[in-house]
Amino acid sequence: YGKNTIKFLRLHKEGKKHVVKEVEVCAHLRLTSPQEYLEGNNSLVIPTDTIKNIVLVLAKKNGIPSLEQFAIDICNHFMTTFCQVAYVKTYVQEVPWQRLHEDGVPHIHSFICVPDGIRFCEAEQCRNGPLIVFAGIKDLKLMKTTQSGFEGFYKNEHTTLPERHDRILCGEFFCKWSYGECKDFDFNCIWKKIRECILEAFAGPPDCGEYSPSYQKTVNCIQMLVLSRVSQVQVIEVVLNNTFYNVVDMKNLGLTNDKEVLVPVEAPYGSCACTLGRKKFFEA
Amino acid sequence: YGKNTIKFLRLHKEGKKHVVKEVEVCAHLRLTSPQEYLEGNNSLVIPTDTIKNIVLVLAKKNGIPSLEQFAIDICNHFMTTFCQVAYVKTYVQEVPWQRLHEDGVPHIHSFICVPDGIRFCEAEQCRNGPLIVFAGIKDLKLMKTTQSGFEGFYKNEHTTLPERHDRILCGEFFCKWSYGECKDFDFNCIWKKIRECILEAFAGPPDCGEYSPSYQKTVNCIQMLVLSRVSQVQVIEVVLNNTFYNVVDMKNLGLTNDKEVLVPVEAPYGSCACTLGRKKFFEA
Amino acid sequence: YGKNTIKFLRLHKEGKKHVVKEVEVCAHLRLTSPQEYLEGNNSLVIPTDTIKNIVLVLAKKNGIPSLEQFAIDICNHFMTTFCQVAYVKTYVQEVPWQRLHEDGVPHIHSFICVPDGIRFCEAEQCRNGPLIVFAGIKDLKLMKTTQSGFEGFYKNEHTTLPERHDRILCGEFFCKWSYGECKDFDFNCIWKKIRECILEAFAGPPDCGEYSPSYQKTVNCIQMLVLSRVSQVQVIEVVLNNTFYNVVDMKNLGLTNDKEVLVPVEAPYGSCACTLGRKKFFEA
Amino acid sequence: YGKNTIKFLRLHKEGKKHVVKEVEVCAHLRLTSPQEYLEGNNSLVIPTDTIKNIVLVLAKKNGIPSLEQFAIDICNHFMTTFCQVAYVKTYVQEVPWQRLHEDGVPHIHSFICVPDGIRFCEAEQCRNGPLIVFAGIKDLKLMKTTQSGFEGFYKNEHTTLPERHDRILCGEFFCKWSYGECKDFDFNCIWKKIRECILEAFAGPPDCGEYSPSYQKTVNCIQMLVLSRVSQVQVIEVVLNNTFYNVVDMKNLGLTNDKEVLVPVEAPYGSCACTLGRKKFFEA
Repeated sequence: YGKNTIKFLRLHKEGKKHVVKEVEVCAHLRLTSPQEYLEGNNSLVIPTDTIKNIVLVLAKKNGIPSLEQFAIDICNHFMTTFCQVAYVKTYVQEVPWQRLHEDGVPHIHSFICVPDGIRFCEAEQCRNGPLIVFAGIKDLKLMKTTQSGFEGFYKNEHTTLPERHDRILCGEFFCKWSYGECKDFDFNCIWKKIRECILEAFAGPPDCGEYSPSYQKTVNCIQMLVLSRVSQVQVIEVVLNNTFYNVVDMKNLGLTNDKEVLVPVEAPYGSCACTLGRKKFFEA
Repeated sequence: YGKNTIKFLRLHKEGKKHVVKEVEVCAHLRLTSPQEYLEGNNSLVIPTDTIKNIVLVLAKKNGIPSLEQFAIDICNHFMTTFCQVAYVKTYVQEVPWQRLHEDGVPHIHSFICVPDGIRFCEAEQCRNGPLIVFAGIKDLKLMKTTQSGFEGFYKNEHTTLPERHDRILCGEFFCKWSYGECKDFDFNCIWKKIRECILEAFAGPPDCGEYSPSYQKTVNCIQMLVLSRVSQVQVIEVVLNNTFYNVVDMKNLGLTNDKEVLVPVEAPYGSCACTLGRKKFFEA
Repeated sequence: YGKNTIKFLRLHKEGKKHVVKEVEVCAHLRLTSPQEYLEGNNSLVIPTDTIKNIVLVLAKKNGIPSLEQFAIDICNHFMTTFCQVAYVKTYVQEVPWQRLHEDGVPHIHSFICVPDGIRFCEAEQCRNGPLIVFAGIKDLKLMKTTQSGFEGFYKNEHTTLPERHDRILCGEFFCKWSYGECKDFDFNCIWKKIRECILEAFAGPPDCGEYSPSYQKTVNCIQMLVLSRVSQVQVIEVVLNNTFYNVVDMKNLGLTNDKEVLVPVEAPYGSCACTLGRKKFFEA
Repeated sequence: YGKNTIKFLRLHKEGKKHVVKEVEVCAHLRLTSPQEYLEGNNSLVIPTDTIKNIVLVLAKKNGIPSLEQFAIDICNHFMTTFCQVAYVKTYVQEVPWQRLHEDGVPHIHSFICVPDGIRFCEAEQCRNGPLIVFAGIKDLKLMKTTQSGFEGFYKNEHTTLPERHDRILCGEFFCKWSYGECKDFDFNCIWKKIRECILEAFAGPPDCGEYSPSYQKTVNCIQMLVLSRVSQVQVIEVVLNNTFYNVVDMKNLGLTNDKEVLVPVEAPYGSCACTLGRKKFFEA
């Protein structure tokens, strides 16, 4: 297959207000014949330069009402225009520009980049198959300073980890969900709702939180809440790259450290992941 | 000289609310004698491990009321404890954890990382000299989608750039200012005020903005506003690493592109910088 | 599943000579039951800390005769020790330390890091399934300054790329091959042989090279040469992330540029990939 | 001031052999008047686009016989062409392409990227001042697995580091030296000689090495050897960003670890630097 990446800005106005979308688009194509690889016959090959032009033309003509709609537009264009395309996948990722505000007043044309979780989506289609849409958030870093522990795990002669019932839970989340064959969804609205679910399931009630017995259980809580609140989601995958923090032992320095000073532990660097669907359960 | 970097978390409670500071501290020391380099005589050398311990002990004992106060504490400790230290500089940078909110309610112990400009500071002192404090913001990415141009520049046979009166102004800002010999400043409050000045000077009034004839002038506007509004600032340096965007030429594709689709230009990648003080003018 | 990453150094002596291996190991485990996710029951969970200890103990006891053997040792340990493990995958990557030479004389204990292609391997096993071994090279950057073109490709109204018969071919290669169920292979020797095949197929004969009609065909040539020369390889995947270079148009500057000055083109950034096996053909 | 970065490839032939230089050039200019900043008057400003064109034209016309000569050419061009330029500094860095060899035979047009220390240089000039040339190597990673210790350092109540007489010495070197006002030096030849000095001083004799009592002393040995062997060097600065490795304590795991398994320590991350000249001594 071949793929390529294009980054660009799409501007338009809503009344006097400027609206900006900066996106990175990656298109994968697989052709019906591998003759380009085997024979060096390029006659069916769509150059990356052409793919770039198509993506820019579609952005110009259709705008980017949502990342998902734009990804769908690109898939549709390739499937309907090129009969030599057997499979197309489009990945679209957003640069998180947010409108500046001065004393609460939104600015007409100024923006600040706020990367507190990056929105992305994917659309993929095999010839004669359904168009499937995924959406997600990545690089979302969250921390709970209490209400997290890890106890009762498997132990043998290689175990040195002590049990802990009040540790830091911190990590970077990658969440990706599928909408199945999607109809006329309000993708922007659903995405915001899912982001709120993720934060809520991670943190628990604002006044007291909710105890997490493991990274794995927190991953599962996020999945369960999203599936219960957002009916459009078919399957949700969550990957948590966790950062461990150790309470610094200050006995040698004549001090008691009551979880006041902690250092991040670089290794082992852990990760846990789970994919959860509506009816059947996938544990990958 | 020697320097080293330590990253850690400082937790404390305010009532039931947890407060978290994650910082990266870098301490530079220069000793009165270079005998460690010339003779391999280590008797005056303070190991990085000891420096790390000192930083963690100070964090434990004093907390981190502000990055600046913590940097000052470290400088003071080294100057008063080690007579072999001729010079000390401390750099402190913050991981931008922000308290999570659910429906506007602040969460008691959950945080999200929001890197929309990183706060840092420096304190430095030579033995028998004053302690100087700097503060700053870096990795602050801003964009204006209009009210920016570049005209009337110098031209010769190597000039190919057309004049433009409606371009994108986009870049990453690094701003660093000195407080001189500082007294009992409210560093947290001043820092927020300066950040607001930077955004305001960049963007102009919310309803119409303000025309920028060049990156250089925007840099200067930021400096002028900060100096005029914040009396504690002695000197301010601003570096702007700009990203150029080109309007895609779509004539070959049969379309008119009215500044709707633009691509970032990787090269030449430009930067402009200026340092401005209260009385005399430094142009570096 | 869960995974984690550990980086460490393994030293030993061969006579008076020191030998160093620095590796990064990543172990993925999937358990037979997802109860940790669903119920927060940790009783079967093997903490990342324990996994780290096991990897370090195996390195201490067995050494790292080859990356592949070490990956196999880790898989075997997990499968035979923990009946709750349903699947294990181990990834091992090398830091490319090379012995220093002074006037051709090898140094007894000094090394330089030479990252001209990073060696890695994977071993994976499902309970009751075979242990499969993969090996590969990544971050291998190669360039041909001639004997490369791209002509005869598919054209339509979105095509703007001109045909070229003398362009730069440049890119970063990722190659990964499987040994199937492996017996007592000399993994170090085979790996070196495959690396030579890749370079040879890329470059062609030293005195004249060999014309490449496309990135895709070069990918295929590499695969064909490896499969024909190295009988232990079952399947080989090659991904080429190519960098395009454009000849700078200097007409406006009054000069003719005969492919003497070229600039890298950041977008579109392209990639092509193919997986080729012995009997049947996979085009992914 | 303003600066910008340009990356490009310069190709030429020597007989039938292709020769490739890929460089990144960064030019800093300071103008005689800051009117662009203060008044938004652009009439003296040289756009980055023009600077890019000049660099490319010089590369086309003069080639890049050495990085240093190319940097000098650029400085000279700006000083003689633009009377509004008060100061110019040019930084040139090389992409380390090396000719491929097959069975010892050099390939006519194929190259591999081997980043085992990156060559760079700087040329700078104030109007009416001398043109000064610097050269250097960066990202050079070296390791000694023995013949390194750290003992006899300063101790107080915050010291926890044990003395060690057989540790790993590992780090990334940055070395930069000045040639003063340079005449017709063979910059390529001198650079290679200095690189060899650095490696030799780091490693010591191939059969036994030489004991290093500290990172600082190793830095000094490198400087002394370069100054003693290479008469063209006026001043040399060396920065060593060291990586510490700890021997893993395996007592809890029932094993004795005789410096066989070590893990890199991420924090504290240390650095030491020294600048050494011919007559007077600078300790910065």
